[in-house]
Amino acid sequence: MNLKLILSFFILATYFTTFSQEKPNVPGVEKGLIKVSIMYPFAEGKTFNMDYYESKHMPMVAGYLGENLIKYTIEKGVSSGIPSQPLPFMAIGIFYVKSLSDYQAAVGPHRDAIRADFPNYTNISPIILVSEVLK
Amino acid sequence: MNLKLILSFFILATYFTTFSQEKPNVPGVEKGLIKVSIMYPFAEGKTFNMDYYESKHMPMVAGYLGENLIKYTIEKGVSSGIPSQPLPFMAIGIFYVKSLSDYQAAVGPHRDAIRADFPNYTNISPIILVSEVLK
Repeated sequence: MNLKLILSFFILATYFTTFSQEKPNVPGVEKGLIKVSIMYPFAEGKTFNMDYYESKHMPMVAGYLGENLIKYTIEKGVSSGIPSQPLPFMAIGIFYVKSLSDYQAAVGPHRDAIRADFPNYTNISPIILVSEVLK
Repeated sequence: MNLKLILSFFILATYFTTFSQEKPNVPGVEKGLIKVSIMYPFAEGKTFNMDYYESKHMPMVAGYLGENLIKYTIEKGVSSGIPSQPLPFMAIGIFYVKSLSDYQAAVGPHRDAIRADFPNYTNISPIILVSEVLK
């Protein structure tokens, strides 16, 4: 009888383990998050050091964000999807955060340090998009 | 003894259920994929019907892509991250695919149908960025 109880516990444990872990696996795991996209437009004469960006700059900024940061991604612009149009962006760094105000409060005190690091990897002035992930 | 065997099975089942589901949860699951971002720039007088885009247009295009499509996301532009600068984009739709050439081959035959659907939700000419997810 005691073993049956234990057995029931493990059946339930298996069920809840499976169930509770399903949510993060469904496509659209980013839904509801805030995206802060730092986008570096391409133009003639513009340069971008991806190694420095990936190994130094982004980890530095990510380090300011604490538990508000769900993840960050880095992408390298390859081409325009429309023939005869120039590459829109050389690179984009994206922070996925839970709260925009927490992001702003965390980054604010370090704004000068972040800007001072720009010349170490680029001569591009980025544009920044704050967006909400709907799907 | 029989019950002990069953019990062992459930302990193992719990372990493997937990273990096998961990992988998709690690940050950076998009690494190595190709992103095709369709970006709708904001400007005065421009309109965008997000309901139609989310319920009709994006599912239509996603339907052309087959197994090459890992996932797609939709985001709504909220603000510029730089005070005094205008919102860069009203909306962005993103297809994460394994192969760019497969994407182009799949979308090519439907290009006219895709463009003909634009007026149903927007008067914006999108720009398209093809990029590679590095992290």
